[in-house]
Amino acid sequence: MLTHRVQLRIFDTDMLGHCHHLGPAMWFEEARNEIFEIFDPEMSREGWNLILVRMELDFKERIQFTQREIEVRTWISHLGRSSLHVSHGAYLKDGTCAALGGVAMVYFDFKAQKPMVIPESIREKLLQHLDENCPYRLRSEK
Amino acid sequence: MLTHRVQLRIFDTDMLGHCHHLGPAMWFEEARNEIFEIFDPEMSREGWNLILVRMELDFKERIQFTQREIEVRTWISHLGRSSLHVSHGAYLKDGTCAALGGVAMVYFDFKAQKPMVIPESIREKLLQHLDENCPYRLRSEK
Amino acid sequence: MLTHRVQLRIFDTDMLGHCHHLGPAMWFEEARNEIFEIFDPEMSREGWNLILVRMELDFKERIQFTQREIEVRTWISHLGRSSLHVSHGAYLKDGTCAALGGVAMVYFDFKAQKPMVIPESIREKLLQHLDENCPYRLRSEK
Amino acid sequence: MLTHRVQLRIFDTDMLGHCHHLGPAMWFEEARNEIFEIFDPEMSREGWNLILVRMELDFKERIQFTQREIEVRTWISHLGRSSLHVSHGAYLKDGTCAALGGVAMVYFDFKAQKPMVIPESIREKLLQHLDENCPYRLRSEK
Repeated sequence: MLTHRVQLRIFDTDMLGHCHHLGPAMWFEEARNEIFEIFDPEMSREGWNLILVRMELDFKERIQFTQREIEVRTWISHLGRSSLHVSHGAYLKDGTCAALGGVAMVYFDFKAQKPMVIPESIREKLLQHLDENCPYRLRSEK
Repeated sequence: MLTHRVQLRIFDTDMLGHCHHLGPAMWFEEARNEIFEIFDPEMSREGWNLILVRMELDFKERIQFTQREIEVRTWISHLGRSSLHVSHGAYLKDGTCAALGGVAMVYFDFKAQKPMVIPESIREKLLQHLDENCPYRLRSEK
Repeated sequence: MLTHRVQLRIFDTDMLGHCHHLGPAMWFEEARNEIFEIFDPEMSREGWNLILVRMELDFKERIQFTQREIEVRTWISHLGRSSLHVSHGAYLKDGTCAALGGVAMVYFDFKAQKPMVIPESIREKLLQHLDENCPYRLRSEK
Repeated sequence: MLTHRVQLRIFDTDMLGHCHHLGPAMWFEEARNEIFEIFDPEMSREGWNLILVRMELDFKERIQFTQREIEVRTWISHLGRSSLHVSHGAYLKDGTCAALGGVAMVYFDFKAQKPMVIPESIREKLLQHLDENCPYRLRSEK
């Protein structure tokens, strides 16, 4: 499990007074930086090799701006030959889980336009964060 | 089916050169305005009565900025006693479907903090857009 | 003057109940598509030749989501040898101007990393939208 | 001077390969949280008492995603009876200033719909961050 803290922005909120549903989507992407880094430590545009094919989000509790900070917990919830699922939870100060979700990503050769097999050296690092019993698993076969 | 056109913004794109995965999420929300309007023609903050509990998105084709416009098609894919699923597709100029997805929403009394039964007058209008065979159905029980 | 209509999104609003200050920035960028098109009708990433160097925004009236639509008026407020200022206003249904602002952009050769002189053929088209008496002029020398 | 670090998100970038001009606007707002806190330690929606009336941004260097983090420096660049200017700079790893800008805000009574005089207790705390010689001053009289 990876843990990352994000600070809330007024931009994250909407007129209903709490965080908009795109808030968790933005925070979860920030938390995925540590996963991206495993695939390419430089995280350069030219060497990018991941493509997002699916996103799921469950909104469980409204998130007030007064929370100030959200703890994002990140797990790899599935590791395939050329794809992976990254799951995330957004936790409030009191430990309540306010949102859960995840993305399916494919290790992709942008030049050849086709999936690649995840190399063993990367797979080993990913396995350290694999938790198939984590609080969220994608409900997709992707 | 409801049809709505959105114009692409550079803000919708990311460094990989095509639209970011939050693009469809933003466009689909804009397309839901016509659904929100059925629930409250004034669409005022005070009278708001819908809460988003789940979002799913499938990214099928990369969307280039040169598309300029996206056609968003919207269906009600499930209509329950106090909840509904709204599904959307993002279509390119040549008719290709580039993204599919949907949200689960609950008709909600924000003061009493509990779901309400969708009134018959609203249900009738929603039924006009119900299509259980539309291209996307949520994979959630919510 | 160019006129463009944008539909409001809940994402545009914040917890204070009206549109967030980035709302006009996003709408104005959408309105600039018609200016970008003058510089490159294909609007491709490879042929992009404009760089934004300054942005100014004045927020005059709070914009409620119940407005539903905003009319964006766009003018070229300054046309230099290799740079231009594009000004925008966001107008409510009753004609009230809710926000004004503008950007300074430079016609730029991304390969050579230096400004280019705006060609006469483009300049002619830009001149059609030039209005140095438009409601907003940048307060910068850029 | 206040110092705050933000982590870059792919969402911050655009198809030109570097950060979009709204990136600094979003990061600077996050950095203003420490200023908002001076005005209302609870930072609740009900007690909110600031209104943003102007924003200016100068984009000096393109910000690559490979920077990973941005240091935002924040100053109060003007303190009036009922208004203040908050200036910000976005700094790269090597110390280069990539963007500068600021906002004008008014201390505002949302119920009475009029500006209020900033109380002495708040003014004292703000004065600790006042630096009229900071790298950016708003070019507006607001």
